[in-house]
Amino acid sequence: MNSFGTLLRISIFGESHGDLVGVTIDGCPAGIKIEMEEFNTDLSRRKSGKIGTTPRKELDHPEFVSGFYKEHTTGAPITILFHNQNKRSGDYNDFLSTPRPGHADFTAFRKFGGYNDYRGSGHFSGRLTLGLVAAGVIAKKIIFPVFVNAQIIEAGGSSDIDQAVQKAIHRQDTIGGIIECTAENLPIGLGEPFFNPVESMISHLIYAIPAIKGVEFGSGFQAASMYGSQHNDAIINQEGKTETNHAGGINGGITNGNDLVFRTAVKPPSSTPAKQKTLNMKTGNLEELKVTGRHDVCIALRIPVIIEAAAAFVLADFMLQEQRVGRINK
Amino acid sequence: MNSFGTLLRISIFGESHGDLVGVTIDGCPAGIKIEMEEFNTDLSRRKSGKIGTTPRKELDHPEFVSGFYKEHTTGAPITILFHNQNKRSGDYNDFLSTPRPGHADFTAFRKFGGYNDYRGSGHFSGRLTLGLVAAGVIAKKIIFPVFVNAQIIEAGGSSDIDQAVQKAIHRQDTIGGIIECTAENLPIGLGEPFFNPVESMISHLIYAIPAIKGVEFGSGFQAASMYGSQHNDAIINQEGKTETNHAGGINGGITNGNDLVFRTAVKPPSSTPAKQKTLNMKTGNLEELKVTGRHDVCIALRIPVIIEAAAAFVLADFMLQEQRVGRINK
Amino acid sequence: MNSFGTLLRISIFGESHGDLVGVTIDGCPAGIKIEMEEFNTDLSRRKSGKIGTTPRKELDHPEFVSGFYKEHTTGAPITILFHNQNKRSGDYNDFLSTPRPGHADFTAFRKFGGYNDYRGSGHFSGRLTLGLVAAGVIAKKIIFPVFVNAQIIEAGGSSDIDQAVQKAIHRQDTIGGIIECTAENLPIGLGEPFFNPVESMISHLIYAIPAIKGVEFGSGFQAASMYGSQHNDAIINQEGKTETNHAGGINGGITNGNDLVFRTAVKPPSSTPAKQKTLNMKTGNLEELKVTGRHDVCIALRIPVIIEAAAAFVLADFMLQEQRVGRINK
Amino acid sequence: MNSFGTLLRISIFGESHGDLVGVTIDGCPAGIKIEMEEFNTDLSRRKSGKIGTTPRKELDHPEFVSGFYKEHTTGAPITILFHNQNKRSGDYNDFLSTPRPGHADFTAFRKFGGYNDYRGSGHFSGRLTLGLVAAGVIAKKIIFPVFVNAQIIEAGGSSDIDQAVQKAIHRQDTIGGIIECTAENLPIGLGEPFFNPVESMISHLIYAIPAIKGVEFGSGFQAASMYGSQHNDAIINQEGKTETNHAGGINGGITNGNDLVFRTAVKPPSSTPAKQKTLNMKTGNLEELKVTGRHDVCIALRIPVIIEAAAAFVLADFMLQEQRVGRINK
Repeated sequence: MNSFGTLLRISIFGESHGDLVGVTIDGCPAGIKIEMEEFNTDLSRRKSGKIGTTPRKELDHPEFVSGFYKEHTTGAPITILFHNQNKRSGDYNDFLSTPRPGHADFTAFRKFGGYNDYRGSGHFSGRLTLGLVAAGVIAKKIIFPVFVNAQIIEAGGSSDIDQAVQKAIHRQDTIGGIIECTAENLPIGLGEPFFNPVESMISHLIYAIPAIKGVEFGSGFQAASMYGSQHNDAIINQEGKTETNHAGGINGGITNGNDLVFRTAVKPPSSTPAKQKTLNMKTGNLEELKVTGRHDVCIALRIPVIIEAAAAFVLADFMLQEQRVGRINK
Repeated sequence: MNSFGTLLRISIFGESHGDLVGVTIDGCPAGIKIEMEEFNTDLSRRKSGKIGTTPRKELDHPEFVSGFYKEHTTGAPITILFHNQNKRSGDYNDFLSTPRPGHADFTAFRKFGGYNDYRGSGHFSGRLTLGLVAAGVIAKKIIFPVFVNAQIIEAGGSSDIDQAVQKAIHRQDTIGGIIECTAENLPIGLGEPFFNPVESMISHLIYAIPAIKGVEFGSGFQAASMYGSQHNDAIINQEGKTETNHAGGINGGITNGNDLVFRTAVKPPSSTPAKQKTLNMKTGNLEELKVTGRHDVCIALRIPVIIEAAAAFVLADFMLQEQRVGRINK
Repeated sequence: MNSFGTLLRISIFGESHGDLVGVTIDGCPAGIKIEMEEFNTDLSRRKSGKIGTTPRKELDHPEFVSGFYKEHTTGAPITILFHNQNKRSGDYNDFLSTPRPGHADFTAFRKFGGYNDYRGSGHFSGRLTLGLVAAGVIAKKIIFPVFVNAQIIEAGGSSDIDQAVQKAIHRQDTIGGIIECTAENLPIGLGEPFFNPVESMISHLIYAIPAIKGVEFGSGFQAASMYGSQHNDAIINQEGKTETNHAGGINGGITNGNDLVFRTAVKPPSSTPAKQKTLNMKTGNLEELKVTGRHDVCIALRIPVIIEAAAAFVLADFMLQEQRVGRINK
Repeated sequence: MNSFGTLLRISIFGESHGDLVGVTIDGCPAGIKIEMEEFNTDLSRRKSGKIGTTPRKELDHPEFVSGFYKEHTTGAPITILFHNQNKRSGDYNDFLSTPRPGHADFTAFRKFGGYNDYRGSGHFSGRLTLGLVAAGVIAKKIIFPVFVNAQIIEAGGSSDIDQAVQKAIHRQDTIGGIIECTAENLPIGLGEPFFNPVESMISHLIYAIPAIKGVEFGSGFQAASMYGSQHNDAIINQEGKTETNHAGGINGGITNGNDLVFRTAVKPPSSTPAKQKTLNMKTGNLEELKVTGRHDVCIALRIPVIIEAAAAFVLADFMLQEQRVGRINK
């Protein structure tokens, strides 16, 4: 299933080592002004380059091939392409016989009968999230003046993230992290229970991002050990402002006008430089595997902007369904 | 949005204090034999009655009004109704002016312009999950020989759940809990990335269950503080069996043949007997609120069977899409 | 697939000789006032009773079991049930071995492996359209001040419809007819090309009504033998009013502000009292079949109100997507 | 709405005078062998070049940018691009103020608030059907050994199509036509009533093709003037073979094993060289319009292969839902 959304819809395509990856955003209202440079900020935040990220360098230059005319959205589907440039497919040949632990090598092979393009993890590559980031730029314009903001609050179990990354590099291993995302200025009433409450739609899209293992809203797992009298947020004004925000801005699956708050757990990249045990599918023997190729020590560093994009996208779709957008945000 | 699913679809309807709540399951293969008594086990597990659950007693007797003929599914939509009997709507009148903290009273009022049926929380009542449990019974037949099993592993922060409930009753408050669900015997290859990986679809449906604040898979939030070399599960045979199961049975959004494992955080019920502060919407003054009516001290006690139903439903839908079911499981 | 629609969604359930048939309408805005009697006019138009229609009499009394409170829609799913009363299932036993020509007996048996409820044609009965008519009543409120109107313009090849019916009764046979539907007062801009233009959505829903064999818009099949200079409708004012209406109110899949006009062809009922040849599936021999039971001579007489309902439903869904409804039509 | 389908899904993007038009096909089983040349036959059939078609020449060369690897489908989304080359956008400037009768100029302007890319009719151009033809090539592989075949059977009211075209050219006008499509070798049981019978899905997709005004199945509109005893098709063997085929291969919305037969009416192109009256939106005056640019005299000549593609696509989606495909057709 390569698409998601009700009135605002995203679909993605491409493989890591094919010609390009791309995204189509459909249902975007006509007349939204977006200058092409506006995409660069968010695309740059997703890029590697910082310490702890892969040495594979990609320009990630967006080509706008439909849906824009004279710097405005036209109402037609928006398609954006990103050519793949810095490919080294040879790195991946071994994974056909010795699937990397923790990766999709084995499951993709079995699901697609061996016909999948395994190079660079193919359609399972984190590179596919480029399109989601681009969609997020558009979604952020739609939801204005709602703002989403995500940042990494923990890596490798520590809130000193630089130190955690250095430690992992030194150890020649990979680490995970926790990302917190908030959305401010939300209208009351977004969300479509029973089956599409805010939490359902956000977690659905967040879990499509590779490497996510947990999503929690407001007090999250902590809520399970609180008393109701502690957890409940007292309403203190007629616009629904609450004293605390254990609910994370959602009651009954619907935004309550307070900040939306959620956290996601990112696992350590499976492609660790550490030695690992895996099965040689051809011989049936256990072998030692050392993943070479170019990989991230802490992919969580690059994910906050993707989380923002996912949150903005879901909120934009809800706002369109609630008829709170339209000719206003242009 | 009252429906969910791709080939197997569920839709629910009804309000807590209306005539009935109901469910329609569409896309179920014809010819599955189900005896009506098979529904009782799961419906009973969801019922109140145990210490820590509401004194509202409902028969929860399923009426099968379509889709069955001679004890087999017919291939037509299956509709099951549950009449509401033990209603005390007067309990809810006050919440119009003084919305309960943590509950959907305020958001539903605002979203539906005051037209929503607020009695017994209306369409936002946990009573709507009856239909999901019934759908789960059918889904469990479809996925056989896959088995799902969910149980509460923690309440109020403690693994001694009885004691935690007693403590909360004594304190006149409510508590949350954590539920763990596993699915055994899964085929390799279920899940539809990019946008419908297993985690996305399960968390989507789980978050539709009232009171859920967190969903995590495998090592979940714990993964964020592990090294890649610790987290990766070594593959040890050609059917993909792994030595550990930090991935919770999923790689790249696709089942890998090991047990699916996920946990959900349930918040303490908002309707606590403890005194709370809330706003009187009419006067604009803060008031003290004491929720009477009949409510659960620990709703998490009743939720495992609902979690199982959600997991079984998603797996059944995936299996139908992967063409692994059909004339076999009848 | 028992559901249809994007923001306004209908799902139906039930079999002709089960306990009941029903409908759920989801996505209807809250606060629309509908008195229960308003359903009776349209439900009566669908009823049998006139010359040329079946002697099976049903009360068709709607039971409103959810989604209404104090005579207004609540924003929750609306479910309406119709109990089946006047059943004579014995009439249908023969069709298991000798499927009626032109009917779904054979295809349903094969699709559902013999598990379908064949009594009264089960889920394939025209009785399922009751729910569509009820949904139409609600849709007509949503689209106000747009009005839809459908009428039979031809039966058995003649515009004198009474005479055509008398002739068929005399001949002991069944006849078809042509129904024309118009919608007045339409806003410009409804329709969602590329894949959901107005024609696509209307024809999709119209063809779900049993017995429909053709749908054409504006000049329809006649357009194929016109010159472009004849067919084009000259625009004569700035609101898009055209001199002629060969387009049937649609250009490029989008309403142009003129009347929507389409016609549907209804085949003669398959259950003709005339003698027919069919195969005895058990013996493999050709046999003579005379369909008894209670059937319509000219089902087209009862279909205009169903066509209206389908058109109103599609238009309401488009209006919700175009944000032209909401708090206005209440 | 730029996408269509349940398990097999198509989405399209692009504008006539943008960089390119494209298509993404998702849900195609992995391992289907398709050589790139196989696309050329169908793409050529859609091309202009014959007498009666536009002098705009396009290479229509497909670029396969994802979803194929080593000449087989990979299971990932398939994206195919077609660069636009032979653009003459200046031809379209006038239509901003004087919308062409019968065309989407006016409705698109109003729906998208003037932000749509009007050049070459933008997203409303018949050029968008290129992607549908490419999807059809893939669908035809999936449904093998089912064959679809469409041909023009009438143009300008005549079955001598060459003569009709010559007459229209001489008259300096445009003409419509009727296309008949059949599908042979169909399995029994395709179609998903109540809301997705075969007729609904085919007509839905057919009406997305620009210029279609009518769709009828089997005896179609003719059925309305037949007796039931004439219209019913006698079943003559146990595989459901019928003596006649007035039903067009469908009973109760489900294929009955006989040939699927349907016809579509194509209107004459709106862009006629004949003089027409239209409104100058700026002045409010009626003006004479003479459409220059490069257009088709009889677009119906190019549509059969698009109709085939649409039919094949719908049948492939149904076959995937009925689990009749998969590892077999590779």
